[in-house]
Amino acid sequence: MTEITQDILTKVIKTRPSDSQKGNYGKVLLIGGSENYGGAIIMAVEGALKSGAGLVSAACHSINLHALHARNPEAMYIDWRSNDLPALIKKMDVIVCGPGLGISSFSQKIMQILCQVVTEKQTLILDASALDLIAQDNQLAPQNADRVILTPHQMEWQRLSQIRIPYQDDAANKSALKKLFPADNAILVLKSNHTHVYGPNNQVFINPLGNPGMAVGGMGDTLTGIIGGLTAQFGGTLDAVLAAVYLHSLAGDLLFKDRYIVQPTEISALLPKLMKKFAN
Amino acid sequence: MTEITQDILTKVIKTRPSDSQKGNYGKVLLIGGSENYGGAIIMAVEGALKSGAGLVSAACHSINLHALHARNPEAMYIDWRSNDLPALIKKMDVIVCGPGLGISSFSQKIMQILCQVVTEKQTLILDASALDLIAQDNQLAPQNADRVILTPHQMEWQRLSQIRIPYQDDAANKSALKKLFPADNAILVLKSNHTHVYGPNNQVFINPLGNPGMAVGGMGDTLTGIIGGLTAQFGGTLDAVLAAVYLHSLAGDLLFKDRYIVQPTEISALLPKLMKKFAN
Amino acid sequence: MTEITQDILTKVIKTRPSDSQKGNYGKVLLIGGSENYGGAIIMAVEGALKSGAGLVSAACHSINLHALHARNPEAMYIDWRSNDLPALIKKMDVIVCGPGLGISSFSQKIMQILCQVVTEKQTLILDASALDLIAQDNQLAPQNADRVILTPHQMEWQRLSQIRIPYQDDAANKSALKKLFPADNAILVLKSNHTHVYGPNNQVFINPLGNPGMAVGGMGDTLTGIIGGLTAQFGGTLDAVLAAVYLHSLAGDLLFKDRYIVQPTEISALLPKLMKKFAN
Amino acid sequence: MTEITQDILTKVIKTRPSDSQKGNYGKVLLIGGSENYGGAIIMAVEGALKSGAGLVSAACHSINLHALHARNPEAMYIDWRSNDLPALIKKMDVIVCGPGLGISSFSQKIMQILCQVVTEKQTLILDASALDLIAQDNQLAPQNADRVILTPHQMEWQRLSQIRIPYQDDAANKSALKKLFPADNAILVLKSNHTHVYGPNNQVFINPLGNPGMAVGGMGDTLTGIIGGLTAQFGGTLDAVLAAVYLHSLAGDLLFKDRYIVQPTEISALLPKLMKKFAN
Repeated sequence: MTEITQDILTKVIKTRPSDSQKGNYGKVLLIGGSENYGGAIIMAVEGALKSGAGLVSAACHSINLHALHARNPEAMYIDWRSNDLPALIKKMDVIVCGPGLGISSFSQKIMQILCQVVTEKQTLILDASALDLIAQDNQLAPQNADRVILTPHQMEWQRLSQIRIPYQDDAANKSALKKLFPADNAILVLKSNHTHVYGPNNQVFINPLGNPGMAVGGMGDTLTGIIGGLTAQFGGTLDAVLAAVYLHSLAGDLLFKDRYIVQPTEISALLPKLMKKFAN
Repeated sequence: MTEITQDILTKVIKTRPSDSQKGNYGKVLLIGGSENYGGAIIMAVEGALKSGAGLVSAACHSINLHALHARNPEAMYIDWRSNDLPALIKKMDVIVCGPGLGISSFSQKIMQILCQVVTEKQTLILDASALDLIAQDNQLAPQNADRVILTPHQMEWQRLSQIRIPYQDDAANKSALKKLFPADNAILVLKSNHTHVYGPNNQVFINPLGNPGMAVGGMGDTLTGIIGGLTAQFGGTLDAVLAAVYLHSLAGDLLFKDRYIVQPTEISALLPKLMKKFAN
Repeated sequence: MTEITQDILTKVIKTRPSDSQKGNYGKVLLIGGSENYGGAIIMAVEGALKSGAGLVSAACHSINLHALHARNPEAMYIDWRSNDLPALIKKMDVIVCGPGLGISSFSQKIMQILCQVVTEKQTLILDASALDLIAQDNQLAPQNADRVILTPHQMEWQRLSQIRIPYQDDAANKSALKKLFPADNAILVLKSNHTHVYGPNNQVFINPLGNPGMAVGGMGDTLTGIIGGLTAQFGGTLDAVLAAVYLHSLAGDLLFKDRYIVQPTEISALLPKLMKKFAN
Repeated sequence: MTEITQDILTKVIKTRPSDSQKGNYGKVLLIGGSENYGGAIIMAVEGALKSGAGLVSAACHSINLHALHARNPEAMYIDWRSNDLPALIKKMDVIVCGPGLGISSFSQKIMQILCQVVTEKQTLILDASALDLIAQDNQLAPQNADRVILTPHQMEWQRLSQIRIPYQDDAANKSALKKLFPADNAILVLKSNHTHVYGPNNQVFINPLGNPGMAVGGMGDTLTGIIGGLTAQFGGTLDAVLAAVYLHSLAGDLLFKDRYIVQPTEISALLPKLMKKFAN
């Protein structure tokens, strides 16, 4: 098991070449935000936007459009019930599914669409309810992406892997991940106060950062969005995921210095200035 | 009668252990926000979120969702007419009812639901219209909570206790409180420019802080939210209530130094940095 | 003609006594905000709130509720088509009518309600379309208020007074004002780059402050809201109106020092700190 | 080919005369913002408002009103399906069409209205989908404006001019522009990492500023809005366009100094202070 270090940021975050345009920094679609959990997709969108994704779209319940745009006019929008959703998914470099998705029959249908539509040119990030839906029905795990990144907390992982929390050790986790995604194309970000990242080829990493002021609702949605932003720009690699995990916690630790709790949206707001320090 | 001192903050606000997660910091549901008074529930939500509650949900009129999430994506939402409301209430550690609730027949029904559903494992905070509804019909006073916290201003207390303002002395207030909640499980926060807090066992406290710049609409909704946030984290104790009352006024006094009036939302915004100074 | 000086601020803005509550600082209702001009009522509300009115409500087209509360949860709301509007008007200390009102048949009806309902205990501030409606039909000028304050710009005053802009001298303006409000209970704030204020008893004042960076849409709506805020706290007096006019321009001049244009909402945001300097 | 220099800012941005009012600084209408791309019209509005246009209105899908006003109460609004749209267009000094317009049959109709209604007293700025609609049908290019300003990125220009990106040299671009607008009343702002501006009389300018942190969605919408703001105040001249292009990039470069990416809305927010430095 290897500890993630700050070097991952300088390794991953590249100074942008001057002759580049937004198309070079990836198209990300984030799917989630039911009637009850609209804030989750908004926070994930903010993570993706402020970590630098070129073009960010949100597919969510239409009730959430107003708040999405009041906070983030930079994001584009599609009603998640739109018949154009499958075609839009096909155009993306990165698809995030899960923040505030909920576990309705409609959200099952969205997972089915992902299974049918996602190709080996795309990175797929699955979080929260998307993982619970797979836990209920393994057939909903999309196998065709170039890279699948899972970001459960320990209880979601228990439901998905059938491993109870006390037994979630590295060997068991690796084995369960390979069973879910036999092609070894998956990365597992197992969130806890010492988040572990399981990559292909049995690699295991541990995040040394983070703090209990981050123990508030929405923190995971924000991390998921940041993973979306970094993989959009730097590829769906293990390094990009490690950088996102480290960056999220580093921002949280900086804010925690003079705050009792850290709000997820403050972490996203800090990213443009924080990433600048590590770009090279 | 004892004056609340700053020591209550160091006593109550605990440094969070590193191996903790949002579930450790309480689930709070805030019920209120009619068509006309949506701002009240938003301000209460901000008080709960920024004082550190782990998971915050709002049950309100659907018209208020957009502004709620434009300001606070960290909060979850349920339409207060949803059939799922009773089940959601059951899952909570703390329930706040009243900010912007209004005194319609529908809000009576919400009080009836609380009477039926709240259990002795939960803290219940009643404010504003919730108190007026009980004043109209004492049967609407939920008796089953582990702790009931009432936060009337003097006129609301007059309606609820039948004690006219000039006669609201400690003896009369204690007696009226015990009559409303015979199990001695209630705390009364009687808001004025010298807020009194009446606890179990005939304890009475007075808040030495506060200023007339705080005499603006929404200040009480914010205090109610902060009581929700602190009891979610530190338990439904008299100490947590005293800390919330003191913290709210301390933030107000700091802002008042260079402001003619203090906006309620500024108080909430100050909490993460202010609480950090007292955590130990 | 007298120049308004900074002394008016120290004269009007009183240090609040500690034993006061929001009820002491006035209830203001702002009416306006049609489907097309929702921003106007929002800016007026911000002027009233941030200048310290105790309780602020907005009556507007329902389409504007979301943005109103996203910006200002401190305000209460009523759909301007509600049958409860006349009863609400009766409870107010100050009624502002006009920002974004429009000149539809519906807004005529609102003016008629004001004519019927407003009493000699209330201050009435008329702006923008409210003045145009009176220009079309003098019967729509409410005569019963304790004080009526009119805040036209020069073109609106031309339509209302029938005096073309080049002929708007003091004698003509005073005469036209008295014709519109024979009881000599009106104050005219005639907005220009040298705003004139015409009070009862033939008094005329000129505002020495202001700058061309304030020549942007919404600046008048904000002034109207500030007049509402100060008259709510300090009474519907000529002094309160003069203080509002001066304060608005003083804030604008401070912001203009390092800005090419001054946004109306920035003026409102500056008020709590600026008023503190003059309170005594 | 001439490089734009900072002198263009001091040349164009005039200190406002004190005896001026909002009517002197232009009426701008921005048309766009479909159901899916509401953020684009919001960002364009922010560019126009914060660069100092006197009166700013947005014509968009009604779903976008809430977020528009939550961010920008200074803007007025019209549902783009309103029958009043043609009459409103006639009252404008500057019309911007395109940000988030989309390429539906309805947006075709809007282009037809522009062709019929715009006169030789008006400046017309066409961006994004408006250009794609003309690419599909050249009859949709409005010929009657005093000045037409086109702001395509290279791919939009390819579709409009039929010149593939590698062949977009100055001679070809000038020729294509003249073919589209035979009256030589058009200015082409061809956005890239070295934006070129083609004016009447075969003039060509190149923008030396800009940075790859600006390679994010919404940056073009913001530039379009700023062009609207400056032409509203300073006339539909080549100089005003050059100043807008330079100002947008200068703001971006200042922000990029300590940010990895630059958010479009941050550029607009910086304009009032930045323009002040160059006003003379």
